[in-house]
Amino acid sequence: MKAILIIGDGMADRPIKQLNNKTPLEAAKKPALNKIAEKGICGLIDPIAPGITPGSDVATLSLLGYDATKVYAGRGALEALGSGIEVLPGDVAFRCNFGTVDKNFVVLDRRAGRIDTESATKLAKALQKTAEKTSTAKVLFKNTVQHRAILRLRGKGLSSMVSSNDPAKTGQKALPVNTLNKTPEAEKTARIVNELVKLFHETLKNHPVNKEREKKGLPPANIVLCRGAGTLPDVVPLTLRFGIRPAVVAAMPLVRGVCKVAGIRVLPVKGATGTYETDFMAKARATVKALQSYDFVLTHVKATDVASHDGQFKRKIEMIEKLDGMVDYITKNVDNEETLIAVTADHTTTCKTGNHEADPVPIILAGPGVRTDDVREFGERTCAKGGLHRIRGMDLMPIMLNLIGKSTKFGA
Amino acid sequence: MKAILIIGDGMADRPIKQLNNKTPLEAAKKPALNKIAEKGICGLIDPIAPGITPGSDVATLSLLGYDATKVYAGRGALEALGSGIEVLPGDVAFRCNFGTVDKNFVVLDRRAGRIDTESATKLAKALQKTAEKTSTAKVLFKNTVQHRAILRLRGKGLSSMVSSNDPAKTGQKALPVNTLNKTPEAEKTARIVNELVKLFHETLKNHPVNKEREKKGLPPANIVLCRGAGTLPDVVPLTLRFGIRPAVVAAMPLVRGVCKVAGIRVLPVKGATGTYETDFMAKARATVKALQSYDFVLTHVKATDVASHDGQFKRKIEMIEKLDGMVDYITKNVDNEETLIAVTADHTTTCKTGNHEADPVPIILAGPGVRTDDVREFGERTCAKGGLHRIRGMDLMPIMLNLIGKSTKFGA
Repeated sequence: MKAILIIGDGMADRPIKQLNNKTPLEAAKKPALNKIAEKGICGLIDPIAPGITPGSDVATLSLLGYDATKVYAGRGALEALGSGIEVLPGDVAFRCNFGTVDKNFVVLDRRAGRIDTESATKLAKALQKTAEKTSTAKVLFKNTVQHRAILRLRGKGLSSMVSSNDPAKTGQKALPVNTLNKTPEAEKTARIVNELVKLFHETLKNHPVNKEREKKGLPPANIVLCRGAGTLPDVVPLTLRFGIRPAVVAAMPLVRGVCKVAGIRVLPVKGATGTYETDFMAKARATVKALQSYDFVLTHVKATDVASHDGQFKRKIEMIEKLDGMVDYITKNVDNEETLIAVTADHTTTCKTGNHEADPVPIILAGPGVRTDDVREFGERTCAKGGLHRIRGMDLMPIMLNLIGKSTKFGA
Repeated sequence: MKAILIIGDGMADRPIKQLNNKTPLEAAKKPALNKIAEKGICGLIDPIAPGITPGSDVATLSLLGYDATKVYAGRGALEALGSGIEVLPGDVAFRCNFGTVDKNFVVLDRRAGRIDTESATKLAKALQKTAEKTSTAKVLFKNTVQHRAILRLRGKGLSSMVSSNDPAKTGQKALPVNTLNKTPEAEKTARIVNELVKLFHETLKNHPVNKEREKKGLPPANIVLCRGAGTLPDVVPLTLRFGIRPAVVAAMPLVRGVCKVAGIRVLPVKGATGTYETDFMAKARATVKALQSYDFVLTHVKATDVASHDGQFKRKIEMIEKLDGMVDYITKNVDNEETLIAVTADHTTTCKTGNHEADPVPIILAGPGVRTDDVREFGERTCAKGGLHRIRGMDLMPIMLNLIGKSTKFGA
C-alpha cells in the first residue's frame, strides 16, 4: 500500500457573501473531489490546535507528523533550503519580499506589484554585490519566485530572535528590525539587517529595472522586506521515523524546504510554478509517476492560497476546479486497491480578509480499509459531519501510515 | 450509582468485502447492544491517540484512566501478575509463546498450533527444571492458557530494555535477544534469555509431548518465543485515585494483570477461558453478582480478538452475538435506575490483516443522566455520529465516574 497526500494551500475559507454565503470550495465544481469524499471518510483538521492560525511552514510540519510547537525554528531557513540555498547550523535566514515604498518609507505595495522573476533576478544580483561590501557577516541574497527572495547571514554570534521590517500592511512605514531578546547575538543580527535594508534601498531606488518599471507605471521594487528569521529545525527524517520512502511534488520554496528538513525527496516538475499559471496536470503526472518509486507522495498546490491572499474568490474557485482536475487524473491513474489518497488544506485563508485564519480545514481519506461515512461532497461544512470528526494536523500522518500498514504498535 | 464497563477485546474492525463492506460488529445481530445504544450516548474512542495502534495492555491501562504513555513499563510484568505470578520491583518478566521452529530455527508456527493447556503444562514443568540448572538469575517459567507462558527473572542488575526473539512472522528465523540500551543490566538480561532459549530448545525437542504431537501431525512446541520484557508499572490504584471499589471479570492474564496493578479485585469465574469456548453467560452472572459488592465492574471478553487475529470474521460475528447475549442478561438483571453501562472495545483488530490497527473504537454509555443522542445501533460508523464525538481512552473513566457521582471538582 502507498499513500498520496494532496494539500491545497490555504484552500479552506469562510462563507463569502457574494457566493451566496458559500465558501469557494463549496461553490466550486469538483466532481473528482466529491467522488473520493463519497468513497472515503471525511473530517476536520486543526493544523496546530483549535484557534491557532498557522503559517504554511508550521502547518506543513504538522501535517507531516511533527509537533510544530516543539520543532519550529522560524520560516527563513526552511524557505532558503527550499530555494536550493544551503543552510548550516548557526546560519540565520530570512524570507524577503521586494516591496514598494514612497520617499518617507511608507509601504505602498508589499509585493512590488508581484514583480516578474526576471526583473527580480537582476535586482537581486545588484543587491548581492552591495551586500558583499558589508563585512560584519557573510551575506547571501537571492530571489526565488516573483517578489520573493532569501537573505542568509553566516557568521559567529548570530540569532533568529529579531523582528521584521515589514509592517504587514500597506500605508504604514517600514519598521526597524528589533531584537526579540536582549542577547548580544540578537543585537548584532538586528544591526546587520537594518544596515543591509538601508544599503539595499539605495541600490534599488536607482536601479535601471526600477526606472523602467516607473516609466511603465509599475510599482518599483525599492525595498527589501525581511521576515521569518530562522535557523535549521532539529527533526527526525520521515524515513527514520516511519520507515517510508517519501517524495514531494511542490513548487513553493517554503514547502520544499520543510520537505527537505523532513528528508522528503523533492522532485523537479516542469511547469509547477506556485502561481496561477502552474501546470496542474504536470503535477498530476509527476505524482502518479513518483508513486512507482516512492511509497508516500506529497503533492502541494500553492495557487489556491495566492488567490485567497489576493481576495480573488472567483480565481480561487477556478484554482480549486483545476486542483479537482489534478485529483481526477491521479485517481484514474493509480491502483486504487493499493493506494490511500488524502486531500486537505494546510490552513484556512479567507478571501474576505486575505489572511490566514484559525478555522479547521476539511480532509478526505479514501482507500482500502477506510471506514466510509455519509459525506458526499468535499467542503468545510460537509466534512464537519464526517466520520473522522476533528483531529489535529500531527495526527494525520500516523493515521495514514496505519492505513497503509506502516505503523508500529505501542504496547503489546 | 454503580458502573459496568464491558470491553470486547479487538471488537472494532474495518469494512470487510465479504460482509458487503460491513464490519463484523455492523453485520452481527445485536439487539441488546442496539437497545442500549438507543437509550444512551455513543461516540468514538482513540484508545491512546489518533493514529496510534495500541496493544491490549496500554489500551486497558488507558480505559482505566491512566496515561499509558507515562506509566507503561512493558507487557511481561502485567501478564505475569495476571497469571498469579508474583512480580516484585526489580523483577523482569516476559510474555512467552510456545512456538514451532524447523532445524534452522525458522519459525513455522508462532503458537505451536495453539497447543492445549494440558500439554503445555507438562512442557513448562520440564523447562522449569532446565531453568533451575542456570545460576545467573533466579528463573520462573510457567505456562498459562494454551501456547502462552511467562518467564520471570529475579536477581540484581536486570533490565527490561531487551528485544524479543520472536520474528513476529512465520517463515523467518528466530532472532537473538538484543539490548535496547547500552547498560550492563540490559546486556546481562539479554545474555540470560539467549542462554535460556537455547537450553529450552534442547529440552523441548526431545520431550515426549512433542514426540507425540509429531506422530499426530501436530506442530511440536519446540521453541519459547519471549517478548514484552516488563517491570512493575508505578500507578495509583483506582480506589485511592477515585474512591471506588472496583472488580473485574476477565480470563486473560494480561487484562487481569493490568487490573491487579490498578488495584481492581480479580473475581474467579468458572468457564471464563479467554477462548471461543468461554462461558459468556457465566461472565454475565458474575458481573451482576459482583455489582452487589463492588461499585465498578469491568467485564472483559477476549474471544472477539482471537477471532480477529485468526482472520475469522464469521467467528467474530458469532462472538459479538454471544457478547450481545451477555449484555442482554446484564441489562435485564441490574437496577437500570442505579447503573451506568458502558460498552466499548480496547482497540481495533481487523480480520483483514489479523493485526491491531489504529482506528478508533465505538463506545456506548447508557444510564441515568446521560445526554442521549440519535444513534440506535452499536457500530463503528453509527457511533461516529454520536453525541460523545471522539474522545481518548483515558477520558472514559473520569466521564463514567462523574456520571455515577464519584468525581471530584477541579477548582472551586
